[in-house]
Amino acid sequence: MKKVAFFFAVSLFFSLSTTLLAQSTQQEEDARYVRQIYDTALTEASCYEWLFHLTKGIGGRLAGSPESAAAISYSRHILDTLGMDTVFLQSCTVPTWVRGDAEQVRIVNSEQIGTQELRALALGHSVGTGPDGLVGEVIEVHSLDEVEELGREQIEGKIVFYNRPMDPTQLNTFSAYGGAVNQRGNGANKASEYGAIGTLVRSMTTRLDDVPHTGAMAREADGIMPIPALAISTNDAELLSRLLKKEKVRVFMRSTCERTPPATSYNVVGEIRGSTYPDEIILIGGHLDSWDVGEGAHDDGAGCVHAMQVIELMRKMNYQPQRTIRCVLFMNEESGLGGARAYWKASNDAGEYHMAAIESDRGGFTPRGFTFDADDEVFTQKFQQVYEWLPLLEPYKLGLSKGGSGADISGLKSQKGLLIGFEPDSQRYFDYHHTAIDTFEAVNKRELELGAAAITSLVYLLDKYGLK
Amino acid sequence: MKKVAFFFAVSLFFSLSTTLLAQSTQQEEDARYVRQIYDTALTEASCYEWLFHLTKGIGGRLAGSPESAAAISYSRHILDTLGMDTVFLQSCTVPTWVRGDAEQVRIVNSEQIGTQELRALALGHSVGTGPDGLVGEVIEVHSLDEVEELGREQIEGKIVFYNRPMDPTQLNTFSAYGGAVNQRGNGANKASEYGAIGTLVRSMTTRLDDVPHTGAMAREADGIMPIPALAISTNDAELLSRLLKKEKVRVFMRSTCERTPPATSYNVVGEIRGSTYPDEIILIGGHLDSWDVGEGAHDDGAGCVHAMQVIELMRKMNYQPQRTIRCVLFMNEESGLGGARAYWKASNDAGEYHMAAIESDRGGFTPRGFTFDADDEVFTQKFQQVYEWLPLLEPYKLGLSKGGSGADISGLKSQKGLLIGFEPDSQRYFDYHHTAIDTFEAVNKRELELGAAAITSLVYLLDKYGLK
Repeated sequence: MKKVAFFFAVSLFFSLSTTLLAQSTQQEEDARYVRQIYDTALTEASCYEWLFHLTKGIGGRLAGSPESAAAISYSRHILDTLGMDTVFLQSCTVPTWVRGDAEQVRIVNSEQIGTQELRALALGHSVGTGPDGLVGEVIEVHSLDEVEELGREQIEGKIVFYNRPMDPTQLNTFSAYGGAVNQRGNGANKASEYGAIGTLVRSMTTRLDDVPHTGAMAREADGIMPIPALAISTNDAELLSRLLKKEKVRVFMRSTCERTPPATSYNVVGEIRGSTYPDEIILIGGHLDSWDVGEGAHDDGAGCVHAMQVIELMRKMNYQPQRTIRCVLFMNEESGLGGARAYWKASNDAGEYHMAAIESDRGGFTPRGFTFDADDEVFTQKFQQVYEWLPLLEPYKLGLSKGGSGADISGLKSQKGLLIGFEPDSQRYFDYHHTAIDTFEAVNKRELELGAAAITSLVYLLDKYGLK
Repeated sequence: MKKVAFFFAVSLFFSLSTTLLAQSTQQEEDARYVRQIYDTALTEASCYEWLFHLTKGIGGRLAGSPESAAAISYSRHILDTLGMDTVFLQSCTVPTWVRGDAEQVRIVNSEQIGTQELRALALGHSVGTGPDGLVGEVIEVHSLDEVEELGREQIEGKIVFYNRPMDPTQLNTFSAYGGAVNQRGNGANKASEYGAIGTLVRSMTTRLDDVPHTGAMAREADGIMPIPALAISTNDAELLSRLLKKEKVRVFMRSTCERTPPATSYNVVGEIRGSTYPDEIILIGGHLDSWDVGEGAHDDGAGCVHAMQVIELMRKMNYQPQRTIRCVLFMNEESGLGGARAYWKASNDAGEYHMAAIESDRGGFTPRGFTFDADDEVFTQKFQQVYEWLPLLEPYKLGLSKGGSGADISGLKSQKGLLIGFEPDSQRYFDYHHTAIDTFEAVNKRELELGAAAITSLVYLLDKYGLK
């Protein structure tokens, strides 16, 4: 009996040792591979050159615009050169809109400061003012609720000025954005309900500067008349607010922006078929469209070249994935998710399973980690598996946490995989977001490359180990 | 007996519970206080305005220059307004040097490209070429050892071109800098030993760009003739290296830089005397001098305003420290540590104990944490205590690790406290370091404020709990 017990104990010891040894060898191998991904990204990556072409070569890429077509063509060409099993365009319908003449917003005959131009941009898919512009008295509010409280008596015939700042004390600037952006998204429609003739919105940034930020607004519900909606710079919002404390202020606003008919556009999709588990898809994506001002460098040229860079790194390292790796450059994230919706429908109709989908749509800054999203049950089961890889990612200062993923992949949640957002440092993102200064120069080469290395490392681990 | 045991068990249980409860209450209180530090920093901090004055108002602050005197006067004035117990200037001797005319470096009569200007800056404390400049054949090397190997036969009468790049695969760019900077620091002296007439050094950055980086070089040993040493931009280094693979290349170089007599300058020191443990000093510092090109914004205007910001935050929050908090703005970090040496001597002579000294001299970028340095025994004993505070700092994405601290505080190690380096993200630091583009515009307000909040939070914990 003692001998049996001894034998059993020894067996257990060796069996445990062997398992632990295998695990530790495995981990060393993975650590070496991740290091190699970083080395390759920091010395051989093409993403910065690709971004140069998308930004300086092509420029702002509003969905449906000639620039967006050029970006589709260019990125398809790049994917074609990367030796994928298939590269194709997936058609979708996108709303279109043109900005028209440079916007004019001006304070008229103030007692304090006379006449003063404000720096402004029409919100995407706003209606214009007509060529003659419009003039109205300004009323400042800080929320949609406040418009309801003020009621038709106070609002009718006026220009409603939404001036609730993004909360600067939020460490994550996306949370601060989330706390303010309904003024831009729904402010005009709410104001119109109560008879306003136009809206001005404080730009979505924590900075005080002269740069107006455009962005999407919701389409009005039936029966609500669309009214012109323009964003003004934060410095100008502060000025206007100071004036309003002292006197009634009238503003002239003019925009010839215009809604134009829906158009056909395309997602760009490239795929490497998995050798062993082809039905388990790992998606990496960004969105190819941007706003028309600036060059869409951080939003989201960076995300597109991140996604393509994952493929190029795999190719350079002769990595053959076991699972299907799909690079998707979505169209029309900025104003309606036309491309994403087409992708979700096709994928769901085909009964596909996205084991993991990673979007990079928070800029090309220094990587801080990844955030993970799924329904509770799926999250509980799958995040734990990913979290075991943390020791491999921590040396690169990457963290893993619960959080959002990306608008373009959000519709894949029902497939019960993990939705993942690449998380770069967020402090400077809203300096550039939706502005004329979101240009190539605002992106740092090393930071961009480190992002691609981080995403590729996670894709490698997802592909190698899968998710149960 | 049973009753006694039961009573004992119950007592132990309550005693443990009380301790745990007290700890958890304590931790909640600390968490709230740290949150309040961040809120105050992100809404009321003056550091960005102070930096504006130091950079745009004063500019590059070479030790001993009129600009450095203006910076001493300005920062003393700011500390005076913060209601400290004492603010004073501490005199020190600093070497001085003037750059003279804009440097000229030009490839002469290349067969491939004819004559071509290269963008160059003399290294700090280099000798000049004389007004007529000098011409010589260029020989490329990648290390000081290679100069020795080539020997006098190959080196004599030539211009030695050091062209070993910073290693781009190092995640921490300071490590990459450490691996290349001896070419700048000691390259000219080594080349002179073997009869070279001048040196060119590839700029210390991982970028490929047109921006030359100056920086310190070591004073030559007795018997070594000083020779002119200039840094050229990395793009120009690449060009020169390509040409050298095809032909002999001659270069003209001209600099009228000049060593001038040592001068008296000052550290700026402000102190709040501790209420309970006045002899336990917590130092926070940066260095007030910078190079003459650019505005010394990241290096080290950011560090100076960080240090002053800690004091202003304490004042705004009515925090009364138990230990002595000393803000020190050092002079002459860049070329000899004249100020630091004077500080160390005075402190050691007075038998002071710096329980902790924190330097911010790695730029004003997004905080990543702190690195800790001490002799092994001290480190083992004291770092553990700091590490217990990690749960309070992790929500702000701060890490704590072993590593360097700062040149200005390095001489305090014998006092057996902890030397601490504030660690911001390092990816962009060497884009700006010692260049004409290290300007106010390169610093982001939120990132700067977050740095001040991080340092203040650590100072708060150090002050509250002390280090045994």
